[in-house]
Amino acid sequence: MAKKVSTKPPSGMRDFLPSDLVRRNYVVSVVRGVYERYGFVPLETPSIENLEILTGKYGEDEKLIYRLLHRGDSLKKVLDSDEAITSARLSDQALRYDLTVPLARVVAQYGDLPKYFKRYQIQPVWRADRPGKGRFREFYQCDVDITGTTSNLAECEVLAAGCEVLSTLGFDAFEFHLNHRGLLRALIRTAGIDLSQEGTALQAVDKLDKIGRDGVLDELDARGVSRSAGETLLSLIAEDATIESLKSSISDEEGQKALAELEELLALLENTPAAGKARFSPQLARGLGYYTGPIFEAQVTDLGSSIAGGGRYDELVGMFGKQTVPAVGLSLGLERILVVMAERGMFPELAQGPDVMVCWRDVERDAVLEVAHALRGQGLRVEVFPEPTKLGKQIQYADAPGVGAAWVAVLGEREIADGTVALKHLETGSKSDVAVADAASVIRG
Amino acid sequence: MAKKVSTKPPSGMRDFLPSDLVRRNYVVSVVRGVYERYGFVPLETPSIENLEILTGKYGEDEKLIYRLLHRGDSLKKVLDSDEAITSARLSDQALRYDLTVPLARVVAQYGDLPKYFKRYQIQPVWRADRPGKGRFREFYQCDVDITGTTSNLAECEVLAAGCEVLSTLGFDAFEFHLNHRGLLRALIRTAGIDLSQEGTALQAVDKLDKIGRDGVLDELDARGVSRSAGETLLSLIAEDATIESLKSSISDEEGQKALAELEELLALLENTPAAGKARFSPQLARGLGYYTGPIFEAQVTDLGSSIAGGGRYDELVGMFGKQTVPAVGLSLGLERILVVMAERGMFPELAQGPDVMVCWRDVERDAVLEVAHALRGQGLRVEVFPEPTKLGKQIQYADAPGVGAAWVAVLGEREIADGTVALKHLETGSKSDVAVADAASVIRG
Repeated sequence: MAKKVSTKPPSGMRDFLPSDLVRRNYVVSVVRGVYERYGFVPLETPSIENLEILTGKYGEDEKLIYRLLHRGDSLKKVLDSDEAITSARLSDQALRYDLTVPLARVVAQYGDLPKYFKRYQIQPVWRADRPGKGRFREFYQCDVDITGTTSNLAECEVLAAGCEVLSTLGFDAFEFHLNHRGLLRALIRTAGIDLSQEGTALQAVDKLDKIGRDGVLDELDARGVSRSAGETLLSLIAEDATIESLKSSISDEEGQKALAELEELLALLENTPAAGKARFSPQLARGLGYYTGPIFEAQVTDLGSSIAGGGRYDELVGMFGKQTVPAVGLSLGLERILVVMAERGMFPELAQGPDVMVCWRDVERDAVLEVAHALRGQGLRVEVFPEPTKLGKQIQYADAPGVGAAWVAVLGEREIADGTVALKHLETGSKSDVAVADAASVIRG
Repeated sequence: MAKKVSTKPPSGMRDFLPSDLVRRNYVVSVVRGVYERYGFVPLETPSIENLEILTGKYGEDEKLIYRLLHRGDSLKKVLDSDEAITSARLSDQALRYDLTVPLARVVAQYGDLPKYFKRYQIQPVWRADRPGKGRFREFYQCDVDITGTTSNLAECEVLAAGCEVLSTLGFDAFEFHLNHRGLLRALIRTAGIDLSQEGTALQAVDKLDKIGRDGVLDELDARGVSRSAGETLLSLIAEDATIESLKSSISDEEGQKALAELEELLALLENTPAAGKARFSPQLARGLGYYTGPIFEAQVTDLGSSIAGGGRYDELVGMFGKQTVPAVGLSLGLERILVVMAERGMFPELAQGPDVMVCWRDVERDAVLEVAHALRGQGLRVEVFPEPTKLGKQIQYADAPGVGAAWVAVLGEREIADGTVALKHLETGSKSDVAVADAASVIRG
């Protein structure tokens, strides 16, 4: 026998047992249903991407990408060579880090997609992040994106779909924070920060929640942005800044355009399921580098982190393809939605076990299989007790936690002679002998 | 702008566009539905496993496992050290290679699972194999397994479920080949081959289809099995050998027991959806090392490779846990099923586009969003044309391949004043003005 190894899943990864999956599948089916009613169609991309597709897209978080080691001869060649071994020589493929970059690759690759490609994608992504509450190394994202248009109806559609998913799942106290990369760029310029420091400034502002005002100023300082410029920027994006107040405090044309866009978007959203759920938030920055226009993030009351986020990224597809294709999208974080719903008792009652377990004594196995087949033909979920155990033990097993059959159908000599099964409802204990052909109508009431 | 990179998926990997997914999701929903009627409950395991879980389970195919490269400081330490760099030092995690080994790990890990754990699992696996027709490096398996019992009802259940899936999908000319590892072991012994060569002999026999009789004899010879022993073995497993004929040609007790088990199993299967679909096949060996009892493989007429395979593996869980847990399972190959169904025109008509696209002219966007919301409230799949384009172009787009809306709902000043939409069925061209609230009943006919 081999030496014993740990049978836990790797750190930050999870096994989903049937009781977990009943809940996950419920949420996924709600998400999918809403996305489809919004006219989004499904897309799936491979878990593995060529590394060059992923690099240069995620900013400093690029270090969290999982890379695949070369195999066989390719690996041998690297290990045997005299050159210094680097990670670049050991790997040229990696695991998907999000669903947005693969979408951009797909849009650049396939010329025959609809001009306005409305796709949803529900798949896992991998990030070698420090595991924490609601933060895993393999986790699902549920994305909707619309490519091919700069129309603000696209922002409305993805935000309305996100709000309808959350409402359908029973969330009420949530809010979408909206901001605009064009506005942030204008404010950075207005604060006197050099354009070359724009990315640095955005990433620092993005951490305001976590590291506070002084932390942001220190980080800006360390990266060569003067304390006074940093202070000007932070005062411009003060929490109480409004679209109105910013209209008068900046002169920048791009900033004025962004403010007008945000104003129109917020007004339009009042005609959708996002009504009353969206507000301007000058401090929202979003970490990812690829956003170009409106950005958004959903917060749930009393939850530290966001449960959805997205924005407009009009340049990303152009990084891959011959032409620029504008795009906007929203990503729902399945794992955090599940954590909040579990903590707050938001799940409806969800059936897990079979409708009926066939228990048997003193009969041949072929008769057991025939009855199971007949019951399945009626559309029932049917389990068969596999061993010739005492009947009491079989019924006890059917009722055990984790098995959770609703009914048992007992089969003995008498029942076979009569063409019946003895049905017993395990919760109430009610019993009745019914013809095999009538079992489903009794079980379904 | 960054340098242009290839936007194709990596070799052996695929993007699934909406038209692909309509078909994939249809097959998966049939598989899931049948598996659930057989009382199987869902399980999902992480894509990434600790390498030590996977090694030593798959025989010579272990070289096809995708390994993940260490990151950050762990990688730096290896690259900077003076010791020779080996693949073992560069990686200790890998991508899932099948769904059986992760199940065995799960059964060993969680003490509170039902004693007879009937789980289904539909997830991708990764193998760095040479890509070919219907053979990919990322592909889905659809597995059912029953752990905790040596009862042959378990074999019956997994085989019946597999047959019912195939029949429901429209396959009729398929056949399950059955053999037994205990019988093969007995035949290997009877041929005078040493027990230590058992694995070698099984792997050689497994290639009989591909490399032929002489190929097998050469391979056995090269690995130290005498030509005469090899010839004896091949004559024992001649294609026309039957359970009856083998009963008299071997004296071995394990072999007789295996023959009796196969005989009983084949008889029992006649009471299930596997009736007429299962037969003894003395040449079936199955490559994987972990099988211990009955083994099976489904062949479709005129397809070179199998579309399902499985068997009993009573020792695998014990390799991980404190105790031995018997198990039997069947894996359906989703990709080959899809290839065959596409080639043979076996798919029903499957709707892909939205039920209706809202097209609009000379109206405010908030009115467009309100009507879309009202239509979605009726359960329709609704797309909104995003831009203020000429109406004719909008309708043309709705009808384009890849978009495929069934209806358009046109919204203009008159319709808004009347609270109506002008519905047009794109295939027939039939038109009617209906109240927004009545749109779904017209569209659903």
